[in-house]
Amino acid sequence: MAAGYRSFRASLPWLLLTLQLGFTSLCWVFFSPGDAPRATISYPAFQDVNHMVMFGFGFFLMFLRRFGFSSTGFNLLIIAVGVQGSVLIEDLLLSVLQKQSEDGLRRIAKATMGMTAVVISTGAVLGKTNPLQLILMVVVEIIVFHMSRWMNNIFLQIPQNISLMHVHLFGAYFGLAVSSRFSEPPARAEKNTSTPKSDLLSMLGTLFLWVFWPSFNSMLAVKNESRAISNTYFALAVSAVTAFLLSVLTTKDGKFRMAHVHSAVLAGGVTLGYTAHVVEAPWIAMILGLLASGIAILGSYCVQRCLNPALKIHDTSGVHFTFGLPALLGALAQVIFLVIKHWADLPSLENVVLIHSGAFCLTISVALVTGLITGFILNLRLFKTIPVSKYFEDQFYWEVSF
Amino acid sequence: MAAGYRSFRASLPWLLLTLQLGFTSLCWVFFSPGDAPRATISYPAFQDVNHMVMFGFGFFLMFLRRFGFSSTGFNLLIIAVGVQGSVLIEDLLLSVLQKQSEDGLRRIAKATMGMTAVVISTGAVLGKTNPLQLILMVVVEIIVFHMSRWMNNIFLQIPQNISLMHVHLFGAYFGLAVSSRFSEPPARAEKNTSTPKSDLLSMLGTLFLWVFWPSFNSMLAVKNESRAISNTYFALAVSAVTAFLLSVLTTKDGKFRMAHVHSAVLAGGVTLGYTAHVVEAPWIAMILGLLASGIAILGSYCVQRCLNPALKIHDTSGVHFTFGLPALLGALAQVIFLVIKHWADLPSLENVVLIHSGAFCLTISVALVTGLITGFILNLRLFKTIPVSKYFEDQFYWEVSF
Amino acid sequence: MAAGYRSFRASLPWLLLTLQLGFTSLCWVFFSPGDAPRATISYPAFQDVNHMVMFGFGFFLMFLRRFGFSSTGFNLLIIAVGVQGSVLIEDLLLSVLQKQSEDGLRRIAKATMGMTAVVISTGAVLGKTNPLQLILMVVVEIIVFHMSRWMNNIFLQIPQNISLMHVHLFGAYFGLAVSSRFSEPPARAEKNTSTPKSDLLSMLGTLFLWVFWPSFNSMLAVKNESRAISNTYFALAVSAVTAFLLSVLTTKDGKFRMAHVHSAVLAGGVTLGYTAHVVEAPWIAMILGLLASGIAILGSYCVQRCLNPALKIHDTSGVHFTFGLPALLGALAQVIFLVIKHWADLPSLENVVLIHSGAFCLTISVALVTGLITGFILNLRLFKTIPVSKYFEDQFYWEVSF
Repeated sequence: MAAGYRSFRASLPWLLLTLQLGFTSLCWVFFSPGDAPRATISYPAFQDVNHMVMFGFGFFLMFLRRFGFSSTGFNLLIIAVGVQGSVLIEDLLLSVLQKQSEDGLRRIAKATMGMTAVVISTGAVLGKTNPLQLILMVVVEIIVFHMSRWMNNIFLQIPQNISLMHVHLFGAYFGLAVSSRFSEPPARAEKNTSTPKSDLLSMLGTLFLWVFWPSFNSMLAVKNESRAISNTYFALAVSAVTAFLLSVLTTKDGKFRMAHVHSAVLAGGVTLGYTAHVVEAPWIAMILGLLASGIAILGSYCVQRCLNPALKIHDTSGVHFTFGLPALLGALAQVIFLVIKHWADLPSLENVVLIHSGAFCLTISVALVTGLITGFILNLRLFKTIPVSKYFEDQFYWEVSF
Repeated sequence: MAAGYRSFRASLPWLLLTLQLGFTSLCWVFFSPGDAPRATISYPAFQDVNHMVMFGFGFFLMFLRRFGFSSTGFNLLIIAVGVQGSVLIEDLLLSVLQKQSEDGLRRIAKATMGMTAVVISTGAVLGKTNPLQLILMVVVEIIVFHMSRWMNNIFLQIPQNISLMHVHLFGAYFGLAVSSRFSEPPARAEKNTSTPKSDLLSMLGTLFLWVFWPSFNSMLAVKNESRAISNTYFALAVSAVTAFLLSVLTTKDGKFRMAHVHSAVLAGGVTLGYTAHVVEAPWIAMILGLLASGIAILGSYCVQRCLNPALKIHDTSGVHFTFGLPALLGALAQVIFLVIKHWADLPSLENVVLIHSGAFCLTISVALVTGLITGFILNLRLFKTIPVSKYFEDQFYWEVSF
Repeated sequence: MAAGYRSFRASLPWLLLTLQLGFTSLCWVFFSPGDAPRATISYPAFQDVNHMVMFGFGFFLMFLRRFGFSSTGFNLLIIAVGVQGSVLIEDLLLSVLQKQSEDGLRRIAKATMGMTAVVISTGAVLGKTNPLQLILMVVVEIIVFHMSRWMNNIFLQIPQNISLMHVHLFGAYFGLAVSSRFSEPPARAEKNTSTPKSDLLSMLGTLFLWVFWPSFNSMLAVKNESRAISNTYFALAVSAVTAFLLSVLTTKDGKFRMAHVHSAVLAGGVTLGYTAHVVEAPWIAMILGLLASGIAILGSYCVQRCLNPALKIHDTSGVHFTFGLPALLGALAQVIFLVIKHWADLPSLENVVLIHSGAFCLTISVALVTGLITGFILNLRLFKTIPVSKYFEDQFYWEVSF
């Protein structure tokens, strides 16, 4: 096996260069300065979302024993590519639809929020894709996600701030669909486990996400921003308590499992995504947080034992139960709240329920179908798929010195 | 010894569930939406305090060699339980006293600040309590702390923002009193030491606390917020310099000791807690910072050599000299400032000095007495006290894979 | 070799004490409360810069295998000393020039920004200086940097916010000049390398810097703050993409090298320092980011292979290509923008170009000359220079337990 075998020198740099030059040229041609009178989003709010995707997800995904460099490094690369792409696609869509463009800060913030979908998807294929496949996946997913979002906006009249919250749903199911096309790693591979140190760094990422989640849920709220913050906070707090509670109940020996904590403490925030600004009392948010955390931990049990083996899906970071199921619960909760609100007015009720259920189904369907296609394309020999024996290995991509 | 021996499966989940359902129901019944016209606290200020207790203390306490999971995990659990409890107690008290409730954000922020007391107390018993004891301690301490704070507010007319700053004092002495009821670990147990890696993570926590301390001291300042920030900053800077200075002077070989740095760099911030917004010139803050840091390092020497062995107290994180003694210095400084201010008017002077000294004595007495009682109760066989040989062990509570 | 040999107990504490007492007294005499009607800088903006120097640089410099304690600990010490010194020098200069003083928060924020120069310089001599030399270097550099800045302000009429951005340029070349007077460590010393864990912590620092760089570039912008943020963001994103691209192209085997990522992802931010608020379209910022990242990686190749061996300079953190060269590019870009702007008006063009080129040359010359002198003085036997065999060793300064 020659040293240059499966080297990415001949392909990756040119792909990145092409993309970057493309972005720069498109930006030259299309980017309107967006002379909004003043920023409609505060810089600290933007920074919070920026921190979330950068540190939060960068370290959240760092639980693998030998994959730390790639987890955090590729996360940076993906976001650097994705945010640029995301801003441009949004600009193109706005100019096609002849809508007014927004100010620069808000555009970058929205693009960063959209990147959450991509980062979640990469969690499902973590350690199984090479950088070439990863970059392609990012570009495809960004395009498809924005298409799906605009279909929701235009055909179903879902407001912008709600349709952008479909990131968790879209990210999780797109990632799962892509992952289903990759070979499964052997069941108990040593490399596919964590060490106490990597678990601690991942915990650091989880704490980042936990702390910044209220910012994420409140950033685009047109009103009731303060209520969105406090509802999300309470839901997250209850999720954390429930995560510890259920972890002791479901593990052998009644010990805590770090993986449970990682995934379930965030469930409340994900679930509240759609409804944080409309939930009227904290106790409702608390119950949602409790249910979300329960679904995440029980879901992890069912999904890992039954669903994944049956469908031959390997979901490295468990995005299905960390983000997918709680987002589904949130979607359900939103519909129930709408039913309660429009109960008196039956014709409008039917309409509203249909539209909102339709929006979620549309998002999931688009995610699954395009994810499957993307997964199929990425596994063409052309893209130098990596053998199962090289999964989860930093050394395959990085110069590592011990 | 059977696998299930001392398993918490039969007790901990039900305690957490009861608490959580209790919180949710109380919240349903009592929580008033707090329709303040607008948030009286900025979201970034709230976030800073949130970061402090989450990352700052979470990592500050992570210096033990084999206790990283528990330090950061239980910190999250404690805060999730404690903030909910704290918000509810405050609400109950406000409704009993028929005062107007505050907006949601401010309530959570104040609850988070109050949690500092609990987190400091857990530092004193770190590694010696099981989660069951920890949760009980949190609940008791939260209730007692709010009682003590309201006694200060109502009987002694201490303003809210000052009485909330008693967190360090209360937390340290409550923790010490609880700790005195636990068996001492053997003097030089290997598990009760740090590794360079764990010290670095603890340093990360210390830096978090250092950076966010000005936010903590300025958040509730009714006026002079900017002065509170810059005074605290200068005091912290001088504390850091003094910590390095005294560390070289007091160690064998004239080397720096990480533990000195961890505890003493924060002393200035703790001391300035009561007076950050009234100190008129930075040089006064600088002198307080210098004294605070000196007290922390010299105190660590005296306390660890003389006081603790005599009283048979084992203070895992050294909360006595890190938070207790600097807070005492701050209390003294506050009284001295009052004396200077009211010097001309002797009758009012006596009154003011009595009231403020009384407030501190009240806080310390309540902390010590209730702490002793709590420590006594927690050591009943009922709560599955852990044997000294299992102190400071993650593996006792967590599934750890190497 | 006696235990006390090269102990700093007899010198360092007294130096620190003298400095600290000097600062406190000067502060007592000179510090004007700065009764500006209200803070002219927001607290979150100040905090961002504070985070950058504290965590960002503290962890950025933590890549050495056995030097973690010193990297992060001495960084804290340097900043605590330097910010106090910086605030006082600025105050002295303002009172000499009889200008109005600014509010406290703004003064600390500007002092913290100025400290970036010092922290960058310490990167060049990381692991080779003892704390005594480090503190002396900090004090000298702070004084010289402010002198150089005020020469720019007064003689060349460069506005304050631009002259403060010379920090990167000044810091890099001062550090290199100092470093040239220190003995070189052996070429492939094991201690002078990183481990995967230390590289990850350094990556954490890099991410902190990456995320906060827009705050740094926008903080002093008198107008167009929002434009400065979005330009810096785009430049950083392109730098990140280019860093990965060029890393694969330039390493053997076509793998990524962490050191490339560390240095090149920030290049865009450094380059945009002078012009972030005047660049009119993001695509220009993107091109600057691309060029900056290219210069950083190609520069690292040339500098490490050719320049450093020839000049016998050992630059531990590669500050020359991480901060020096991108800052030079930024200076060049600023002059080019001025040429384009003043093209129609030839006489004013010549004047403007001369003045701005003069400013950069002045900064570099002052940095190089004073750096050489400082390096020469620091290597006097008086200051207990450490032998090459003790370079990069925490154990020489800290009590380390394994």
